[in-house]
Amino acid sequence: MSDVYMKSLELHRLHRGKLETVSKVPAATREDLALAYSPGVAEPCREIAKNPAAAYDYTMKSNTVAVISDGSAVLGLGDIGALASLPVMEGKCVLFREFAGLNAVPIVVDTRDTEECIRVVKSIAGAYWGINLEDIAAPRCFEIEERLKSELDIPVMHDDQHGTAIVTLAWLINALRVTGKTKEALRVVVNGLGAGGTAIINLLLDFGVRDIVACDSRGIVGNHRTDLNAYKQKIAEKTNPRDLFWDLAAAVEGADVFIGVSVAGVLWAEHVQTMAPDPIIFALANPEPEIRPEDAHAAGARIVATGRSDYPNQVNNALAFPGIFLGALEARVRDITDAMKLAAAHAIASLVEVPDTEHIIPDLFDPRASRVVAEAVRR
Amino acid sequence: MSDVYMKSLELHRLHRGKLETVSKVPAATREDLALAYSPGVAEPCREIAKNPAAAYDYTMKSNTVAVISDGSAVLGLGDIGALASLPVMEGKCVLFREFAGLNAVPIVVDTRDTEECIRVVKSIAGAYWGINLEDIAAPRCFEIEERLKSELDIPVMHDDQHGTAIVTLAWLINALRVTGKTKEALRVVVNGLGAGGTAIINLLLDFGVRDIVACDSRGIVGNHRTDLNAYKQKIAEKTNPRDLFWDLAAAVEGADVFIGVSVAGVLWAEHVQTMAPDPIIFALANPEPEIRPEDAHAAGARIVATGRSDYPNQVNNALAFPGIFLGALEARVRDITDAMKLAAAHAIASLVEVPDTEHIIPDLFDPRASRVVAEAVRR
Repeated sequence: MSDVYMKSLELHRLHRGKLETVSKVPAATREDLALAYSPGVAEPCREIAKNPAAAYDYTMKSNTVAVISDGSAVLGLGDIGALASLPVMEGKCVLFREFAGLNAVPIVVDTRDTEECIRVVKSIAGAYWGINLEDIAAPRCFEIEERLKSELDIPVMHDDQHGTAIVTLAWLINALRVTGKTKEALRVVVNGLGAGGTAIINLLLDFGVRDIVACDSRGIVGNHRTDLNAYKQKIAEKTNPRDLFWDLAAAVEGADVFIGVSVAGVLWAEHVQTMAPDPIIFALANPEPEIRPEDAHAAGARIVATGRSDYPNQVNNALAFPGIFLGALEARVRDITDAMKLAAAHAIASLVEVPDTEHIIPDLFDPRASRVVAEAVRR
Repeated sequence: MSDVYMKSLELHRLHRGKLETVSKVPAATREDLALAYSPGVAEPCREIAKNPAAAYDYTMKSNTVAVISDGSAVLGLGDIGALASLPVMEGKCVLFREFAGLNAVPIVVDTRDTEECIRVVKSIAGAYWGINLEDIAAPRCFEIEERLKSELDIPVMHDDQHGTAIVTLAWLINALRVTGKTKEALRVVVNGLGAGGTAIINLLLDFGVRDIVACDSRGIVGNHRTDLNAYKQKIAEKTNPRDLFWDLAAAVEGADVFIGVSVAGVLWAEHVQTMAPDPIIFALANPEPEIRPEDAHAAGARIVATGRSDYPNQVNNALAFPGIFLGALEARVRDITDAMKLAAAHAIASLVEVPDTEHIIPDLFDPRASRVVAEAVRR
């Protein structure tokens, strides 16, 4: 077992989890309890019964995000089940706390039935200010997010989709600044049509990229394909403007940007060599990227990003989701919109005054990040 | 609005809720995140996927109680809805934290359908070490608790039933010491057959009381009644050994103990005057008791307990539930049994060396309470 895994296991065992609940009010005397609990607590209860919006004034709903997963697509581990996803959800709650000062509680939902999952989340959602969906497999994640967004009156965001897309776009914005490429003339290949790939394509289209070619494990996604589910069908309608129909090799030929949210090793040096000058590579598969940065550079790549912290240019959602939720909370919006996501990406990108090939987006611990993202979302 | 309500509202508004989530692990550097989150967190996930019991070693399941309500029977307020019950559930979480050092998270379930409530709780239960059900209306609460106890492999306790019963029994044990009455010869009337009354009867029977007469709003519960639901039917079979069949007045005549878990004002001075010598009165209706202590004493009552903190002898569940859950956690039991409840009641009673009519059970803030209850439960 590698060192980081062994140390992580020790850390988790030592603390028996990473999150604890703490009282914000005194509870040391009879008088304290008369206010925090019975009989005084009856009054905030009555206020909320009269007017549900009062829950934002008198309860933890004011500032608590629920981090919810069914454990069906956890990290690179796949479907490991709801309970086994709990360490990730607790970790995410820690990030909400540390990066945005928000309360967060992990909820794991033990079902593989889409309707059941939606029903469970809806019935417990009232106590939370917003919901961060996490590590739910595609295509189920699309329906669960869409339905919850439309049926609940609180912000809902599946971070594997939109957090990834926002940070990727922030990256791309600065990569364009470095290379002088323009979004209008850009050719982008997105390999992998899970949660991340699908959301990246939609956000890039919103941003103004016109030529995107999507690939899944069977090749280029286009109108020639007869095996697409409804979500991939929609992607086929919006992408592949030159009607390509072969495999990844055909897609990347002449492309400016490769974005991999797929599996290790699928992008070869030979592919990179066929790309347009100054290729931009996002190899986001975890833990092993689609191509190793050193191999990509050797094949001519100008800028390479991965999901890993041990290479330069890590694409990490933690730059986006804390600020997104913080901004949506401060603005008390009901919904996290596409315009907010675009604004967030621009805000993250703008934190780097002069990007270069090894410093494309701000440091993960840039103390300004959650603040500027929150401001952008609010506006 | 009375002072305590106004102050409570202010307190809740000031803090916007009473509970917050805090990280137990550092998250200030890239290395911290590599252990608390990606990639290190994959290892505890893998361990739990292999062996679900490992969640007790690596996650907040190790020490977190879920406080769950549907908001259908909140304090004396009745069915105010799930969201409006949140201040009570947060308050309960504060008590778990302050009295037993346990993590606790509030969950409110927005449904009035018994099966749906059970399904929702079961699907999210995995993350918790135990479940404290709270403020769920009778008779639904009985089925929900029974089913969850049998279908989940973690401790489940409806505190309105068993917490109340345990503290009431602790009281009664010491009231017997003060009055010299014996459980074998004792005549007890329980007025009110909601969650608390039903559990009190069952625990008193376990304790060894033989003559209990139960009353609901229609009078004495017995085999003569044709309007009883299944839960009251069971009570009818176990109580009323002298086959009484009239009203509360008939029940209390000659009784040693009156236990009211019903509504304000139903016990009159005239009733108390007909009781056996040295009557023991538990008037637990909140906020207004079944009889005011001063009226009960004037009518001859020897010992009077209420649910209120502004009279002597407050019956408060907080003496029981923190220690019950703490003991069950330490012993890693799957179930909170009747034997544990009896042991807990004896433990609470034993903290008072020489009880007198105004000091029957220990102070709510007795620092020994949760510890001795936990020890009793463990044994």
